[in-house]
Amino acid sequence: MASNTSPTSHGSLANLLPPSWKTQVTAWLAEDTPTFDYGGFVVGSGPRTATLWGKSSGIVAGRPFFDEVFTQCGCAVEWHLDEGAVLDFGADGKGKTRVATVTGPTRGILLGERVALNTFARCSGIATQTRAMTTPGFRLVEKYGMLVGGADMHRMDLSSMIMLKDNHVWSRGSITDAVLAAKSVGGFALKVEVEVQSEEEADEAIAAGADVVMLDNFTGDGVKVAAQSLKQRWQGKKQFLLEVSGGLTPDNAASYVCDDIDIISTSSIHQGVPHVDFSLKIEH
Amino acid sequence: MASNTSPTSHGSLANLLPPSWKTQVTAWLAEDTPTFDYGGFVVGSGPRTATLWGKSSGIVAGRPFFDEVFTQCGCAVEWHLDEGAVLDFGADGKGKTRVATVTGPTRGILLGERVALNTFARCSGIATQTRAMTTPGFRLVEKYGMLVGGADMHRMDLSSMIMLKDNHVWSRGSITDAVLAAKSVGGFALKVEVEVQSEEEADEAIAAGADVVMLDNFTGDGVKVAAQSLKQRWQGKKQFLLEVSGGLTPDNAASYVCDDIDIISTSSIHQGVPHVDFSLKIEH
Amino acid sequence: MASNTSPTSHGSLANLLPPSWKTQVTAWLAEDTPTFDYGGFVVGSGPRTATLWGKSSGIVAGRPFFDEVFTQCGCAVEWHLDEGAVLDFGADGKGKTRVATVTGPTRGILLGERVALNTFARCSGIATQTRAMTTPGFRLVEKYGMLVGGADMHRMDLSSMIMLKDNHVWSRGSITDAVLAAKSVGGFALKVEVEVQSEEEADEAIAAGADVVMLDNFTGDGVKVAAQSLKQRWQGKKQFLLEVSGGLTPDNAASYVCDDIDIISTSSIHQGVPHVDFSLKIEH
Amino acid sequence: MASNTSPTSHGSLANLLPPSWKTQVTAWLAEDTPTFDYGGFVVGSGPRTATLWGKSSGIVAGRPFFDEVFTQCGCAVEWHLDEGAVLDFGADGKGKTRVATVTGPTRGILLGERVALNTFARCSGIATQTRAMTTPGFRLVEKYGMLVGGADMHRMDLSSMIMLKDNHVWSRGSITDAVLAAKSVGGFALKVEVEVQSEEEADEAIAAGADVVMLDNFTGDGVKVAAQSLKQRWQGKKQFLLEVSGGLTPDNAASYVCDDIDIISTSSIHQGVPHVDFSLKIEH
Amino acid sequence: MASNTSPTSHGSLANLLPPSWKTQVTAWLAEDTPTFDYGGFVVGSGPRTATLWGKSSGIVAGRPFFDEVFTQCGCAVEWHLDEGAVLDFGADGKGKTRVATVTGPTRGILLGERVALNTFARCSGIATQTRAMTTPGFRLVEKYGMLVGGADMHRMDLSSMIMLKDNHVWSRGSITDAVLAAKSVGGFALKVEVEVQSEEEADEAIAAGADVVMLDNFTGDGVKVAAQSLKQRWQGKKQFLLEVSGGLTPDNAASYVCDDIDIISTSSIHQGVPHVDFSLKIEH
Amino acid sequence: MASNTSPTSHGSLANLLPPSWKTQVTAWLAEDTPTFDYGGFVVGSGPRTATLWGKSSGIVAGRPFFDEVFTQCGCAVEWHLDEGAVLDFGADGKGKTRVATVTGPTRGILLGERVALNTFARCSGIATQTRAMTTPGFRLVEKYGMLVGGADMHRMDLSSMIMLKDNHVWSRGSITDAVLAAKSVGGFALKVEVEVQSEEEADEAIAAGADVVMLDNFTGDGVKVAAQSLKQRWQGKKQFLLEVSGGLTPDNAASYVCDDIDIISTSSIHQGVPHVDFSLKIEH
Repeated sequence: MASNTSPTSHGSLANLLPPSWKTQVTAWLAEDTPTFDYGGFVVGSGPRTATLWGKSSGIVAGRPFFDEVFTQCGCAVEWHLDEGAVLDFGADGKGKTRVATVTGPTRGILLGERVALNTFARCSGIATQTRAMTTPGFRLVEKYGMLVGGADMHRMDLSSMIMLKDNHVWSRGSITDAVLAAKSVGGFALKVEVEVQSEEEADEAIAAGADVVMLDNFTGDGVKVAAQSLKQRWQGKKQFLLEVSGGLTPDNAASYVCDDIDIISTSSIHQGVPHVDFSLKIEH
Repeated sequence: MASNTSPTSHGSLANLLPPSWKTQVTAWLAEDTPTFDYGGFVVGSGPRTATLWGKSSGIVAGRPFFDEVFTQCGCAVEWHLDEGAVLDFGADGKGKTRVATVTGPTRGILLGERVALNTFARCSGIATQTRAMTTPGFRLVEKYGMLVGGADMHRMDLSSMIMLKDNHVWSRGSITDAVLAAKSVGGFALKVEVEVQSEEEADEAIAAGADVVMLDNFTGDGVKVAAQSLKQRWQGKKQFLLEVSGGLTPDNAASYVCDDIDIISTSSIHQGVPHVDFSLKIEH
Repeated sequence: MASNTSPTSHGSLANLLPPSWKTQVTAWLAEDTPTFDYGGFVVGSGPRTATLWGKSSGIVAGRPFFDEVFTQCGCAVEWHLDEGAVLDFGADGKGKTRVATVTGPTRGILLGERVALNTFARCSGIATQTRAMTTPGFRLVEKYGMLVGGADMHRMDLSSMIMLKDNHVWSRGSITDAVLAAKSVGGFALKVEVEVQSEEEADEAIAAGADVVMLDNFTGDGVKVAAQSLKQRWQGKKQFLLEVSGGLTPDNAASYVCDDIDIISTSSIHQGVPHVDFSLKIEH
Repeated sequence: MASNTSPTSHGSLANLLPPSWKTQVTAWLAEDTPTFDYGGFVVGSGPRTATLWGKSSGIVAGRPFFDEVFTQCGCAVEWHLDEGAVLDFGADGKGKTRVATVTGPTRGILLGERVALNTFARCSGIATQTRAMTTPGFRLVEKYGMLVGGADMHRMDLSSMIMLKDNHVWSRGSITDAVLAAKSVGGFALKVEVEVQSEEEADEAIAAGADVVMLDNFTGDGVKVAAQSLKQRWQGKKQFLLEVSGGLTPDNAASYVCDDIDIISTSSIHQGVPHVDFSLKIEH
Repeated sequence: MASNTSPTSHGSLANLLPPSWKTQVTAWLAEDTPTFDYGGFVVGSGPRTATLWGKSSGIVAGRPFFDEVFTQCGCAVEWHLDEGAVLDFGADGKGKTRVATVTGPTRGILLGERVALNTFARCSGIATQTRAMTTPGFRLVEKYGMLVGGADMHRMDLSSMIMLKDNHVWSRGSITDAVLAAKSVGGFALKVEVEVQSEEEADEAIAAGADVVMLDNFTGDGVKVAAQSLKQRWQGKKQFLLEVSGGLTPDNAASYVCDDIDIISTSSIHQGVPHVDFSLKIEH
Repeated sequence: MASNTSPTSHGSLANLLPPSWKTQVTAWLAEDTPTFDYGGFVVGSGPRTATLWGKSSGIVAGRPFFDEVFTQCGCAVEWHLDEGAVLDFGADGKGKTRVATVTGPTRGILLGERVALNTFARCSGIATQTRAMTTPGFRLVEKYGMLVGGADMHRMDLSSMIMLKDNHVWSRGSITDAVLAAKSVGGFALKVEVEVQSEEEADEAIAAGADVVMLDNFTGDGVKVAAQSLKQRWQGKKQFLLEVSGGLTPDNAASYVCDDIDIISTSSIHQGVPHVDFSLKIEH
């Protein structure tokens, strides 16, 4: 959940999106209007302008998705806030904030409204308070929101880093066996991470060649002792990163921080991810 | 958000799912393992058993999706709790609850794990605390969760009921004009709902033939007065339902209830929808 | 099959088409030219002009589909007749009518020719003489043609109105049971229609809350008596529409018309739907 | 429209269907039930039996499509009539004919009903009275129906025979040029057919190497003279087939028949293709 | 493998590609960048120019595919060599050849690089040395390359010519039976080719109406004798083409050439098809 | 191109294939038989047995693809050789080897024949002589073949390792800047590889945090000197792998081997990848 420098200082995150993702937007629009667009008939195709209003606090995230939804509906979007900007609702007594202006045919604005708002609100919500439990079919949006929020993602999918958790080790029989098998197919391009429950298991993982070792469900004090011991014992022999996970909350995370621990992660789901509140209103 | 009798007393909600939705599950699995399944190579295809544990309170929802994910991975699921059952975590001091047992090839269990858990946890979360802001591409799961939780859904999509909101009316020019246009294409099969800001607008909508009138952003007292007045004035002349929406919270909803109001709805997003917490552990 | 005001007086029917339907056109073109376009090689890509000729009488319908086919083939279409216009072949001794002009690369005109003509001719045929038995995979075109022809459509698909026919009632056991189950999942957004064979069944459906009651296979006289009786008996207690269907032909439909009947429908298939005859000829 | 021996005497036409066409059936079912199956919830999944009744005269065609629709809905079909059998309605005073029996879960029978009936009725209609103007996206069904009805199909699509019509020749400049270009890409595997308006054009096409020459819009007498003259003049020099098309009706076709003409074709659309009338009724 | 006149003298081969093939390019790009484009983030979207260099000898083929890849990545391509041009590497001591210039956003150039180069190199390789064993999912590119290289293609797929090989004849029982069945469904539009092992089998195929007879695995001398004998015996009675295949190599092909043989084919795979070597370098 | 232990000693490579790849096989079959299967009509659906014969030397690879093709055609495959086995043609004077037996309906065997053979022959060819230039749309098969052949793959796609080549560095301006930007989005899960042209560039890449440094186009001697110097200079400070690439051939590769070099790679395309020769013959 932490990274030293924010990606937005190195470039535009929109450049991460592959050329093929736009077909996902087409599918969302088809889900929302599977057959006839009765509302579109009612309002027609005359030109209109609508405003995107921010109505709660949070981080602005998801501009490329909002843009693409409206592009496919024949509309144009002008932005008044940058990707990653902070929405500060109610702070200065002014209330809602003008975030963007959408122009185009009336039915285009209304066709895109629900899909664009829900995607943008969810992406902004993820950027504001990152959570690891992604929605199937919607991961690109949510991982993108995590990056805008400054988080370091875990692997994107099961094909992009080899993660060996308790279930894998139990199935294979031993940590050593699991790591060697993983490296035989992953080659030098993919990292191997192993989740361990004790210092002994950590030693076994490191000896077998793990690139990242995750200390799972250690106590705050126990983890510091184990981390120091592991880093000293393997000094100059093997290179690895130590990650701490499990049982962390915003309240106790600080107690886990020390020089020997490289990554602190949490996938706490005790609280849902609130959408940031936006509305889209046609000028009249 | 309310319905008199629960659908589960009338039949199995799994019968609502169309034959074609299973291709969505295939797409979720492809998103999760786009190319090689390195972990699958490590653990192999020997037979294994895993347990689905419930680790927080909530309503069980999403069994058909969980089943289909594992069917596509070559596994079988045995359920220990019914769809719609209440998970009561910590109530009796016993802690986590055994919800289901999954059996099949080891790599099949692990391939399905993340997709099945996230879908099931989200669907159960929606059933536990319904919210109107659905995730694009994931609506079937979320609407299904609303039904398991006992909520009355708004229309599924823009093609299944004609909903005329402020933006539509502003675009068309008048409520009367918008309703007549809507009825000219919707025929007798589709209902027309109109969102209004005042009693005068409600009268105009009813006169034009609206099937449902939504009183938006009225105060608790004002809405009762308006509802009674409307119902009396149109008695025996026009049939319509009155819906109240906007500004409702769990705390003040009771103050809106009266005989003249047919539907109370809320799309509050001040709180996110928490996932219900589940885990899947292989027996070892 | 009847509606009071034509939709074309309320707006452009092209506004009913969702943004996603254009992928259907791509699939039609792929079906027509699955691999190499040998004819395209022969004629090349030089600029050409072609004329769409109307060669029989009927109603013009399907302009958006014809337009999209040629757009995807890199051509432009200029129309000389409006959507819904009447083609009157042979009336004034002039013969065929110039309906549209297509310009673009030669191979583009020929690539689109067969798909555009067949779609346009079928849609115009449907508009000219509406029939209820739609072709799978081609429903959007045919329902659109029905609207251009001024017909009131039945529901678009099985998800857009809950229709309980004889097979449903037999399967469920009773009309009352079937209607209550339907309302438990459909909520207030979807209408429930019940097909009945007698006045007693109609009473049961109305009492259970049906929105539309279809009197199936009554005789012309019997249906009038039943309709009057039902409307009087439920006056002020329940609101419902009465539909008459079954055994109607263009010849006897008039005998079914009376004040107590709201909808007269027929799905007669004794006569096929003729295409309206069009041809597309390159200027030379 | 004629072939010497019926294909059904050489094998089962179901063997013509490629393994991939079943995804078309899935798409038809998805079009028919895009989201929730409310009727399915009402009737549940208990076992039922239904009968397919033939209610008009015609040729039975489309069994593989009917089968596949119900297979995808979890049902089984037992047939009482062969593909290509003649339905003779009303001939013996018995009325409707039992064509097939469908067994399976109630909702499966009702989910498949509309798609299976419309496909089967259209395919049987095509078999009964073949027409050349196919519906985009539905061609496989219609061409299959033509074969069951005993007709000789024109090419399946623009990639399967090189057909040079008036528009191609006008675009290319000359018949000779068009034929040579076509043969340069089609190689020896694909036939080249040329549509001509006169005996001189026929000579040019034959000299250039056309495999089939279509004499378009000749009169009955003129076509016989031209055919005899062409066959004699090119005897022993070039091999080609002569096809007559245009202006043929069931009434005057006989006058075109002679030894020098190999193929008589018509794409008359003065009459639509009636569906053959079928119904599906659950036993109760 | 031979054709009298090159297709490129009759027109542009790009006109053979159907409008739908561009979705294949989208799928290739999605395969290459399934989720985030990390490299794209690094380089950004500023404007750049890159050069396509030819680095080995061969025939230039595949320009439409290269063009479409970069169009979908927002770039433009200017060509310095024609489709079908000969690359002559090292001949004049100059080394690599400037083939094309690509301009556009930096990340667009790099997104398209691998897909465009591999497709272009494979298509050029196929054009340079045609082989019959195509790669599934990539046939359009490879058959196109064969045409650029001047080869006469066998049928594009199993639906475009009826090819009866040893396996078909063995399965059906006799050549006569197989040919008659094939003609009963193929009609006059599709050719029937039969593979035979002896002159007697050739006689049977010709008598049954085969359009092409392939003499398989005859010796060089034996094939000439058989061909002359067959052509004389059937003179004036049946028209057919004779093809020789099997056991041909670049070295012995000449010995098979004689007046009575119409087609010589080989699908030798003793040598793989080398890619022609290209690179794409950004100007800096 | 080298890995210490072969993956086949650690498990079955078939476990690497994701559940979704089977839809690729469906698409290949659809490409091969886009509409009617005329040959299938000729041979019918009676039961048959066919033998897969190996007719050249090489490594057997691609069994899961061969299996899936025939499963989708309703056939079963029995294997006589393991994945990765060595085919030794002509060694013992026996000639062709029986590799597998296919049983099922005749038309199923012939429908799958071409797709299964070409996929299997290409995959076996890749396993026998690995090449880096993959065919778009066919990468899963080819990377799988590389693993069977014992090669260490480079990353699967642009999303699975961050590879910074000359074009990236030129576009970004400096190696340091490019590496820092890459790490800001890749987090700790993805490795960063940098291609360098000199020892100075290598130092810059290592200092910036590159995980792998590729020395491009060094001479055999120069690369050894540079590698030793880099490994000594960064000893105990940074951990990285050194890869050598460019200009390697089977002949000179040995001269590049030394202790300081971790990976030797080549993407030589001077020779094409021959298919391994297989045939499939029905028993008769």
